[in-house]
Amino acid sequence: MQTDKKIAVVGAGLVGGLLAIHLRKLGYPVVLYDRSPDIRTIDFSGKSINLAVSTRGWNALQTVGIDEEIMKIAIPMDKRAIHNLEGEITLQPYGVNGEAIYSVSRGELNRKIIDIAERFGTKFKFQHKIWDVSLEDTTLYIGQNERESLDAHKYDIIFGADGAFSKIRQRMQKLNRFNYSQYFLSIGYKELRIPPKDDGTHFLDPNSFHIWPRKDYMLIALPNLDGSFTCTLFLPFEGKNSFESIQDENQIIHFFEKNFKDALPFMPTLVEDFQKNPTSSLVTTQCFPWIYKDKVALLGDAAHAIVPFYGQGMNAGFEDVTEMYHQILNGQDDWSKIFNNYQLKRKPNGDAIAELSFRNFKEMGTDTADEMFLLQKKIEAKYTKKYPERWLPLYDRVSFSLQPYHEVLDIGNKQRAIMEEVMQHPNIKEIWETDEIYEIINEKIKNAD
Amino acid sequence: MQTDKKIAVVGAGLVGGLLAIHLRKLGYPVVLYDRSPDIRTIDFSGKSINLAVSTRGWNALQTVGIDEEIMKIAIPMDKRAIHNLEGEITLQPYGVNGEAIYSVSRGELNRKIIDIAERFGTKFKFQHKIWDVSLEDTTLYIGQNERESLDAHKYDIIFGADGAFSKIRQRMQKLNRFNYSQYFLSIGYKELRIPPKDDGTHFLDPNSFHIWPRKDYMLIALPNLDGSFTCTLFLPFEGKNSFESIQDENQIIHFFEKNFKDALPFMPTLVEDFQKNPTSSLVTTQCFPWIYKDKVALLGDAAHAIVPFYGQGMNAGFEDVTEMYHQILNGQDDWSKIFNNYQLKRKPNGDAIAELSFRNFKEMGTDTADEMFLLQKKIEAKYTKKYPERWLPLYDRVSFSLQPYHEVLDIGNKQRAIMEEVMQHPNIKEIWETDEIYEIINEKIKNAD
Repeated sequence: MQTDKKIAVVGAGLVGGLLAIHLRKLGYPVVLYDRSPDIRTIDFSGKSINLAVSTRGWNALQTVGIDEEIMKIAIPMDKRAIHNLEGEITLQPYGVNGEAIYSVSRGELNRKIIDIAERFGTKFKFQHKIWDVSLEDTTLYIGQNERESLDAHKYDIIFGADGAFSKIRQRMQKLNRFNYSQYFLSIGYKELRIPPKDDGTHFLDPNSFHIWPRKDYMLIALPNLDGSFTCTLFLPFEGKNSFESIQDENQIIHFFEKNFKDALPFMPTLVEDFQKNPTSSLVTTQCFPWIYKDKVALLGDAAHAIVPFYGQGMNAGFEDVTEMYHQILNGQDDWSKIFNNYQLKRKPNGDAIAELSFRNFKEMGTDTADEMFLLQKKIEAKYTKKYPERWLPLYDRVSFSLQPYHEVLDIGNKQRAIMEEVMQHPNIKEIWETDEIYEIINEKIKNAD
Repeated sequence: MQTDKKIAVVGAGLVGGLLAIHLRKLGYPVVLYDRSPDIRTIDFSGKSINLAVSTRGWNALQTVGIDEEIMKIAIPMDKRAIHNLEGEITLQPYGVNGEAIYSVSRGELNRKIIDIAERFGTKFKFQHKIWDVSLEDTTLYIGQNERESLDAHKYDIIFGADGAFSKIRQRMQKLNRFNYSQYFLSIGYKELRIPPKDDGTHFLDPNSFHIWPRKDYMLIALPNLDGSFTCTLFLPFEGKNSFESIQDENQIIHFFEKNFKDALPFMPTLVEDFQKNPTSSLVTTQCFPWIYKDKVALLGDAAHAIVPFYGQGMNAGFEDVTEMYHQILNGQDDWSKIFNNYQLKRKPNGDAIAELSFRNFKEMGTDTADEMFLLQKKIEAKYTKKYPERWLPLYDRVSFSLQPYHEVLDIGNKQRAIMEEVMQHPNIKEIWETDEIYEIINEKIKNAD
């Protein structure tokens, strides 16, 4: 492998940082650019959703041997804890074999990854805003102000890991025949907080992903190591119950008393957090191609920003990095082939996880509170235990396997059709605990083939 | 109506020009900007598809009393003339009542509209490139070069009629919660030409829209007043038969001999045209919102660029102008309401004609050559004649009515489902000429309700 190529990675977030580590491991000189100051030097809170690392994420971290280090800042969550209006909690295990996803604070994880990237020999250029890019000349134009003279930074290869509103992708959008879409949900989100108890422990079970599903809106809470929870409220921008209509102290308290009354006592800074923290939007972006010749490639949100309802945004971005790493390893310095193989492998998966994430919004907001939905989950789990080689639920495939997302989506669609039929059975509530349920599903599977 | 508002229209194409005429008729001072020189002073050929004005277009022109003037440069086409591989021609009337669509050269129509806009008192600023826009300050920034100092032109209202790659829309795309997509077809197009005979008459019937449908590619020819035809070849960019694989003289001649042998003798400049004229791409763009507060609004391709396979791009853009005109007339100077009503009315129609145009590509390329498709058209025409109050074919609704596109799409979907069933009738080829066919369709309509 020729490792004399000069490489720039744009975006020192999770994906850009992890990519830099991989490229350094391969021996390339890497410069990592970010428009913001070094995240290790600033306070990073108030505008994030906590992350859940699942199997694909761990696999990517393991590839460069940093999984154990990250595990130290992660908290396993092996179940959903669903809070109803009365404050009663229903527990719903995530994996059929007791698997867990892992809560990590975005800021902490990002700092840790930048630390490791530095240790691997990455060169950093923080507070470097990119105003323009020449794709053909792989040159970044950097400066304080668009109108003033810009410095040209020339590389052999540029990776764009600069997020949903990627500057690199914006330049590619101007090319002929570049397909692109951005679609915003009509709901937004806001970060809130449950602090630790005085003794530093958690007010709620720290090994659960807490959800208060309320159909058109939803509160979630993920644990932090310091005993606190990072909460996220998802709520429409406009309408009866919305960020527009809930603004003053009375409105906020009233809304929480009515909808999240068991959480309210643990949220002493609710009103302050609600009024201070920004309301953020949720976007899905899709594009193609993801590359420009043998010169430029997009990874992570820059290639495929998704809504957060499957907890797969970072995991999908990390899988991009793993795929790129393997293509470089096996690509014999043919960067045209490396990049093309990368995009052909990853594009269908990016589209599939976008679709799955979009669908899961409905599941999280509505279905998790639905009796029949819970029954369906139990039936699937029971059948999986009996015939693990015939059935693995969708959630498990997404979160606890490395099967490509596009295959997972296909299988998920087939399984969904089967379960819809099964749930139509007139006596489903009675027979599901008996062995008859195996026969019914076996029959449906046979008919579907 | 307060007509002291200063208005800028960006884009001196068909939609921008027609909008300026409407605004002048209402009494507003209007400045029309375009990055190109005055189209009346330059040669405009080699990169266009001829236009077909249909009922919606004529209605818009009539609103400001310029339809008769435009009719003078239009040629009626009351049928498709479908040329098969052997050069045999099948004629297929467009309207069930003999209606026609009208061929117009884009360049000629644009010149005429600019003439009329000038006569109505529009002020022009040609060769004014807009580098940036402040939506909040309704200010256009204009100059020779992005890096040099720009002139600020301040208005009260700005209309963006600057086409599929609208600069105004690009600025709106950076706003939070702006939905946008651009999707390119994998086929492109190239303008070609059939010159007039020596006596100035046409080589082919001038009152037909000529089509050579060949499944993956297609040639069309529309008549001009000077006896020539403007032809357009639609062809994949890459692959076996493609713009990539057909480049030299031998390849071009061979491809036309094989596929369009009856057209070839009329195309003496084929090789020169093919090699000289650019290959252009085909894009669908969709976005929302179409407006910014009471300050900025998009019309035509800037709001909804569509593929040309229904001949409705200009007609849809003209309908935007008509709608805007009526909203201003009735809006009592409340521009916030005027703009919002405009976008709520037109957005569903923009989406519907995008979908219909996309579908019609398949119909033009493949189905027009298909025996069963032709039979279906005949059955629909026969039924429409018998029960004009029950059935109007999709094409007629799109081209010869003012029914909103989104209603047309809904009805079209229902009719399609019915006709699919009708065509499944085992003896359809025998019974379609008998009265039995009325009963069959009546029955299907009853079941569908």
